[in-house]
Amino acid sequence: MFDDDAAADGAAPGPMRWNGWGDPAKARELPSAVRALLPVVLGRIPRPAPAASFDEVELAASALDEADRHALAAIVGAEHVRTDREARIRHSGGKSTLDLLRRRAVQQHAPDAVVDPADDREIAAVLRLASERGIAVVPFGGGTSVVGGLDPEGGIDRADGGRRRAVISLELHRLSGLVALDELSGEATLRAGTTAPEAEALLAARGFELGHYPQSFRYATIGGFAATRSSGQNSSGYGRFDAMVTGLRVVTPSGDLDLGRAPGSAAGPDLVQLFLGSEGAFGVITEVRLRVHPVPEVRLHDAWTFRDFSAGANALRQVAQLGTGPTVIRLSDEAETGVGLAQVGRIGKALSKGCSVITVFEGEAAITAERRARTAAVLTAAGGTHTGERPAEEWVHGRFNAPYLRDALLDHGVFCETLETATTWSNLERLKRDVTEAITRGFSAHRAKSLVLCHVSHIYPTGAALYFTIIAGVKGDALEVWGKVKSGVNDAIMAGAGTISHHHAVGRDHAPWLEREIGELGMRVLGAVKAELDPAGILNPGVLLAADAAETRGR
Amino acid sequence: MFDDDAAADGAAPGPMRWNGWGDPAKARELPSAVRALLPVVLGRIPRPAPAASFDEVELAASALDEADRHALAAIVGAEHVRTDREARIRHSGGKSTLDLLRRRAVQQHAPDAVVDPADDREIAAVLRLASERGIAVVPFGGGTSVVGGLDPEGGIDRADGGRRRAVISLELHRLSGLVALDELSGEATLRAGTTAPEAEALLAARGFELGHYPQSFRYATIGGFAATRSSGQNSSGYGRFDAMVTGLRVVTPSGDLDLGRAPGSAAGPDLVQLFLGSEGAFGVITEVRLRVHPVPEVRLHDAWTFRDFSAGANALRQVAQLGTGPTVIRLSDEAETGVGLAQVGRIGKALSKGCSVITVFEGEAAITAERRARTAAVLTAAGGTHTGERPAEEWVHGRFNAPYLRDALLDHGVFCETLETATTWSNLERLKRDVTEAITRGFSAHRAKSLVLCHVSHIYPTGAALYFTIIAGVKGDALEVWGKVKSGVNDAIMAGAGTISHHHAVGRDHAPWLEREIGELGMRVLGAVKAELDPAGILNPGVLLAADAAETRGR
Repeated sequence: MFDDDAAADGAAPGPMRWNGWGDPAKARELPSAVRALLPVVLGRIPRPAPAASFDEVELAASALDEADRHALAAIVGAEHVRTDREARIRHSGGKSTLDLLRRRAVQQHAPDAVVDPADDREIAAVLRLASERGIAVVPFGGGTSVVGGLDPEGGIDRADGGRRRAVISLELHRLSGLVALDELSGEATLRAGTTAPEAEALLAARGFELGHYPQSFRYATIGGFAATRSSGQNSSGYGRFDAMVTGLRVVTPSGDLDLGRAPGSAAGPDLVQLFLGSEGAFGVITEVRLRVHPVPEVRLHDAWTFRDFSAGANALRQVAQLGTGPTVIRLSDEAETGVGLAQVGRIGKALSKGCSVITVFEGEAAITAERRARTAAVLTAAGGTHTGERPAEEWVHGRFNAPYLRDALLDHGVFCETLETATTWSNLERLKRDVTEAITRGFSAHRAKSLVLCHVSHIYPTGAALYFTIIAGVKGDALEVWGKVKSGVNDAIMAGAGTISHHHAVGRDHAPWLEREIGELGMRVLGAVKAELDPAGILNPGVLLAADAAETRGR
Repeated sequence: MFDDDAAADGAAPGPMRWNGWGDPAKARELPSAVRALLPVVLGRIPRPAPAASFDEVELAASALDEADRHALAAIVGAEHVRTDREARIRHSGGKSTLDLLRRRAVQQHAPDAVVDPADDREIAAVLRLASERGIAVVPFGGGTSVVGGLDPEGGIDRADGGRRRAVISLELHRLSGLVALDELSGEATLRAGTTAPEAEALLAARGFELGHYPQSFRYATIGGFAATRSSGQNSSGYGRFDAMVTGLRVVTPSGDLDLGRAPGSAAGPDLVQLFLGSEGAFGVITEVRLRVHPVPEVRLHDAWTFRDFSAGANALRQVAQLGTGPTVIRLSDEAETGVGLAQVGRIGKALSKGCSVITVFEGEAAITAERRARTAAVLTAAGGTHTGERPAEEWVHGRFNAPYLRDALLDHGVFCETLETATTWSNLERLKRDVTEAITRGFSAHRAKSLVLCHVSHIYPTGAALYFTIIAGVKGDALEVWGKVKSGVNDAIMAGAGTISHHHAVGRDHAPWLEREIGELGMRVLGAVKAELDPAGILNPGVLLAADAAETRGR
């Protein structure tokens, strides 16, 4: 379904922009219509100071000492322990707006080395060594985290009077490829470092598809999807990534785990679900077994318009509860529909009224046609008006491009970020209002105007996810302002019975709020699992577990 | 969908037979056709020695001392701490064939007391007291475990030189009722001690249904379904119980947990899935939030016949992978079809050829008709022949009655038990053969003839569950013989890449095999969670964690 450019043939995309999103060749200027619109919406925004160039960036010297470096080289080979500037800068974090703003500065943090293991055996040896010597290890897949999942935090070495440890980035790109495909059962085993486009190309050659399309699709890895409980744009049809996983292999400092023995089981707690979302804090996911499906015979697109968000949400609820089976269904609120972000390619071309809905149906021809017709009947009965196939096709075509737009906005000094949550249908509109108000109020407190767009892109019988896109005209230090606004938004999500993350994981950015979601005892359960698997506390210190996060925040 | 007798109106069934299944009024003699058939299949079987009557049963005196009894009474009220014979015998275990055989003896084990708390606060206080005083606590829902989940094992008090603790059965029937129903979101919150028929009656009064129908439906509780990761007969349509749960409240010796905040989440590991299947070893589940659906407008039944099991399994695989949406789909193998167990009411009436398949479709009228027609097209194309609606309706009518048949067989000295597993489609027929051989070989080694029937009743895109019904003409000590046969079967399941349980949980009976499914490190993870939540090790000692099981097995 990723038929919009050359990467579709499985050619690995080149490395991402070190200080922005994606393919450097696809970086683009802000459309002139948007440029004209921005001062109207956000007021006058001063152009920011120019960002540091790659050559201007200054890093502290690598804290990895020679003995440790030699020991790591003895495991993975000297060429696979990199301490050069380029490797370190390219592994210095993820792609949140905070990350990108930090990357404009001259002084930057980076891991002390990048280590590229070849296989599970080497990973196990690296983890043992790191545990003995107090070296923090940050597993690195596609590098697309937007929640601070990859910050090179060293944590505190309690055994050594608080001395900061060295931090290595454990780059997993050498763990790539299709290990096995059980065509009859529709199950594929992929190595964790395989990127999503590589995985789809390997599967397509055998007539199969995974069908997991988050915005990060072009760069993200299978292991990263598992570690972060990723949601994709087709999650309404194929389920979130956690619903696709049937098995995991995990290498931890305390040994290896092979989990997931049957399509369903009553053999105790589901430990697969304990490692999905573990964000590298419990172990390194090295293989993922996944449900796959035959490449769809047909793909059918439709666009709809509804009077308002409430009518659209009501229609989506009925679709979810009746189970009419769209592969993709998205509802843009009035604001998102208005600026045309529902179809990125159309931004600024026309201001639309009402709320747009997009549906995509995939699968075997006759069944897919039936699902489409049945869904259309529900949407029509719920007050929807069909607006043709084209807007939905355009959305599919442009759907991985929004992050490029963010880069262009940031270059113009316009703050741009996304955040998301999920809740029950009965609480959906209230939570949307509370979050929107928290964003608007938060920026207002810093004399910044903001525009908040929202869509629903993941539906369940009991509820849905809300995805917010925010642009704001921040005049002061955007890093500082956003830190405060986001904190207020997270408080509003917790007070409003939403989850702290539906799409993007906890990372370091949400870690202080996780305890309000799972409770003090829930945190202790996670801590007990971590202590068993990672007794030296070397694995991705600062993610998930708020206590660690608080300790390391001062760094 | 439970329209086969009076309990359908929600009237709580009376207490179960203390030494057999279900309603004493429904106990029945073996059908004469079956009686005639048995010697042909199994050889001559001596009638067993008569079972001990209720009055003949002898229990050891309660080991709960007066001080503990008073302390418990101070928490729950004196009338809710029962040490009388009747209460103790009725809480002495579950309903596996091993349980029922043990219940024929004069000397029986029973918990030292039965404690009936009213609410979470009382449960928390009981757990604190029990932790301080080293009293084991076995949470007790419907009492229908068939895997040794309820044995009154005291465990070993390591702090006290191995002295056996007292054991109390924590009876949860007072925790009953519907706490909340969110009609828009289709979410119900039920107290854990609510029985399934009570839950359905409470929901039906509001136009909703849960739709979880294991064989134990009439007696099992909502909390028990959650604690054991139960599968029901409608799991192909509505999902296993673990797929229905959206939230849990758990009271542990270390505090309380409120888990499950949104219909989907990326906020770290899914802790709900850590407590589903925890079998009372981590805490007492006191409330369960569940996805529910409107009472179906229509129910459509069909029966089919296939040439053989292989053709039938291939058809079910296609239905699962195309997602045509039956609520129930079951395939009986040649043996099960032959003896007519596919429709319990028809046992012995006619020997059928081939393999029968039953489908039931439920839901909104038009969509349900479409799903039925689409499924019928797939089954027909896969070689199925439609045999009318009647056999499927008969199956629905008689589907909770098989356990009564087991009682009648046991009374005739015929050993009868069930076991189940699950695996991928590509491994299904091999695992079926391996398990069947292990059963047959196991009984042969004890000069016992056996008959093994099998059905597939839970399908997934990647695989299916296998459910075996076994009858055997055991001449010696059936308890001892079955212990050895079952051990060989479990080894065959593990060697054959099946799960040790798909329907019934681990309990004490499967605990020694769990390590082969999740590995030594997986066991350590469970142990670390248990140590955090139940540091005194009082909760249901012996289930799940094989080390405990081994220690307590000598008792």
